[in-house]
Amino acid sequence: MDGQEAIEELIAQMARLPGLGPRSARRAVLHLVKKRDARLVPLARLLTEVGQSVRPCLNCGNIATADICGICAAGDRANGQICVVEDVADLWAMERAQVFKGRYHVLGGTLSPLDDVGPDDLAIPKLRDRISAEAVTEVILALNATVDGQTTAHYVARELEATGVQVFGLARGMPVGGELDYMDDGTLRAALSQRQPI
Amino acid sequence: MDGQEAIEELIAQMARLPGLGPRSARRAVLHLVKKRDARLVPLARLLTEVGQSVRPCLNCGNIATADICGICAAGDRANGQICVVEDVADLWAMERAQVFKGRYHVLGGTLSPLDDVGPDDLAIPKLRDRISAEAVTEVILALNATVDGQTTAHYVARELEATGVQVFGLARGMPVGGELDYMDDGTLRAALSQRQPI
Ligand SMILES: [Zn+2]
Ligand SMILES: [Zn+2]
Repeated sequence: MDGQEAIEELIAQMARLPGLGPRSARRAVLHLVKKRDARLVPLARLLTEVGQSVRPCLNCGNIATADICGICAAGDRANGQICVVEDVADLWAMERAQVFKGRYHVLGGTLSPLDDVGPDDLAIPKLRDRISAEAVTEVILALNATVDGQTTAHYVARELEATGVQVFGLARGMPVGGELDYMDDGTLRAALSQRQPI
Repeated sequence: MDGQEAIEELIAQMARLPGLGPRSARRAVLHLVKKRDARLVPLARLLTEVGQSVRPCLNCGNIATADICGICAAGDRANGQICVVEDVADLWAMERAQVFKGRYHVLGGTLSPLDDVGPDDLAIPKLRDRISAEAVTEVILALNATVDGQTTAHYVARELEATGVQVFGLARGMPVGGELDYMDDGTLRAALSQRQPI
């Protein structure tokens, strides 16, 4: 591959990233080659480094740079709580919010007959194993408030019944900053029925 | 730097690319680490390869992987025409359209007093040198149809007067597929005054 072919191929690879298309990939590559030392070289080095170290956590499915991720390895996060998320992106969102002190379990998707995702495609047996192995008392199903997410939550809850663990879902209601006027009926119904004393 | 830090730093570097923000950079990195072999490793390899080979063409300012770019090196593109563009991105746009058979000259910007870009910041002396060195008979100023672009076009045209070369600008008019109803007054005025026999 000569240099020009490498540039073309680089644009093609960048264009396959989520959020980038052919046009923005070209702009991004142009930006990189114009700022080779400040941008392109560090990015190449970081990608190489991450590519050599990254793998899924054998325990929870988080992205890790060792067999067990930092969260699973941290003793102070073994508080008896496991937060079940659909995807690593959701785990990262929870961590950014700094609202959860326990461990996670990445399901790897939601049940979705249309997309041909069944129970066998999700990491449910491993979750069941962890409940006894890690003395878990509480499972929080932090799945999306969508039909697939809620179907999956109910399925997982039923699968965990025999373990005797407490299973929770996330609360429904008004998002912070939400305006009544813009809320859909389902949100308003949930916010009213789950009303809290002030 | 441990693996987790490398991932964070990779997200930060990706977020600095045009068209990506922190959120889309996280999504892109997550996508890459999930598809390490198919996406991340090839991208790292391509970036490294491009980083080692890429540099500006000493003749025209195009991005090259040798001292002289492929277009300047191709004998059949020495047809006496030079197309002057503001930026390498514009050169790529012309090449994609496959409408120009001559060589290019990248100005490196447009005159812009507000952004403190003056004549000394543009590659005009080199352009003047090339006109005699490459026996150029025609210069096409393919600059943006903006105030800065047109100011620059007039400035460059005046700078080239002594060379005796013919200087052209791009035609103005209706874009292909353009609807009269949506055109601004300036476009309609140009399209009418530069009307063509059918
Ligand atoms: Zn883990
Ligand atoms: Zn060149």
